[in-house]
Amino acid sequence: MLDQIKIVKPTEIEKNSMAIITKELGDRTFPPLEEPIVKRCIHTSADFDYADNLVFSESAVEKALEAIRNGASIVTDTRMAASGVNKRRLAEFGGQVHCFMDHEDVAKEAKERGCTRAVVCMERGSKIEGPVIFAIGNAPTALIHLYELIREGKADPVLVIGVPVGFVNVIESKELFIGSEISHIIAKGRKGGSNIAAAICNALIYQA
Amino acid sequence: MLDQIKIVKPTEIEKNSMAIITKELGDRTFPPLEEPIVKRCIHTSADFDYADNLVFSESAVEKALEAIRNGASIVTDTRMAASGVNKRRLAEFGGQVHCFMDHEDVAKEAKERGCTRAVVCMERGSKIEGPVIFAIGNAPTALIHLYELIREGKADPVLVIGVPVGFVNVIESKELFIGSEISHIIAKGRKGGSNIAAAICNALIYQA
Repeated sequence: MLDQIKIVKPTEIEKNSMAIITKELGDRTFPPLEEPIVKRCIHTSADFDYADNLVFSESAVEKALEAIRNGASIVTDTRMAASGVNKRRLAEFGGQVHCFMDHEDVAKEAKERGCTRAVVCMERGSKIEGPVIFAIGNAPTALIHLYELIREGKADPVLVIGVPVGFVNVIESKELFIGSEISHIIAKGRKGGSNIAAAICNALIYQA
Repeated sequence: MLDQIKIVKPTEIEKNSMAIITKELGDRTFPPLEEPIVKRCIHTSADFDYADNLVFSESAVEKALEAIRNGASIVTDTRMAASGVNKRRLAEFGGQVHCFMDHEDVAKEAKERGCTRAVVCMERGSKIEGPVIFAIGNAPTALIHLYELIREGKADPVLVIGVPVGFVNVIESKELFIGSEISHIIAKGRKGGSNIAAAICNALIYQA
């Protein structure tokens, strides 16, 4: 069986994968700036649901690309999402990836205040200088608190990538953003994840 | 809208999520040792396909649990999967997580030999002392090369978690293991990912 597998170079694999995704999407069309994001989500999950469940606010991608070119930082809610973002390519524009979840003093502060670490992390992220993109792939509490911070004028991200995954408060946390004036890319429904958050960040970075 | 969301404690979220998954699985039953793994894959992806696509070789979980209790190491093919594994809990048994992908000398060796970094990483992983579990969530080339190493007697993992995701050589790489005598947990088809690899590792660690 082994000799039936044709080994393909890593650079070719991505090209061939994208061609297969394009073919299977058939007649589906997407706005040109959104298409690479939809495809990269499918590429990272092999789940074609992402052709239907991604919601982009008006000019969300355009604004994000401009911010990345101007050295925007990315704040994630998990170490896993931060690991998946292409930090080398982001750094070429001057941007950095931040995840505060495993900082010791974050755990301490959350305990003292009786809130989740995600809440503390969103607050730290909102204090970063310059343009910031939040990429939330895990914690609906992070997304909910980020919404509160924005409403209170305490956070002003250029984009919120809201793709937590799961069964409790996930749909509700996403619905806060859909239709709002906050620039967003949201995966409707239960699906998402740290891998999807990282894939959307990378699709933006590769386009910038 | 915000005041309609009932904030749930993180510890409760997982419990409630698992209850929803159990309910939606309805009459589906799984072998007791495999059930937590299936459910954690659904939990991490909100994708019920994992109720159908996970393949376990005979006693795969039993052997893996014993190995973890004896301090087994876990080798992943991505930094992202390594990030997702509960290293603190694994360390309580004496085990460590290894990912060689971003080691500088791995890139150098791969370039010199004209192979992928994944190939070099599998070779390094196979040289680790003591019981080793490989968790491959990304690179089919890693899974294929691991199969070759095992066939050549150069690797002897206690378990291969084979859940690369994608469209090129992914299904073929998984089919090498299904039905083989190598102890395995495989996600049939195109689906999988670093998040799924980490989820399976954690489901094993929490059961051990």
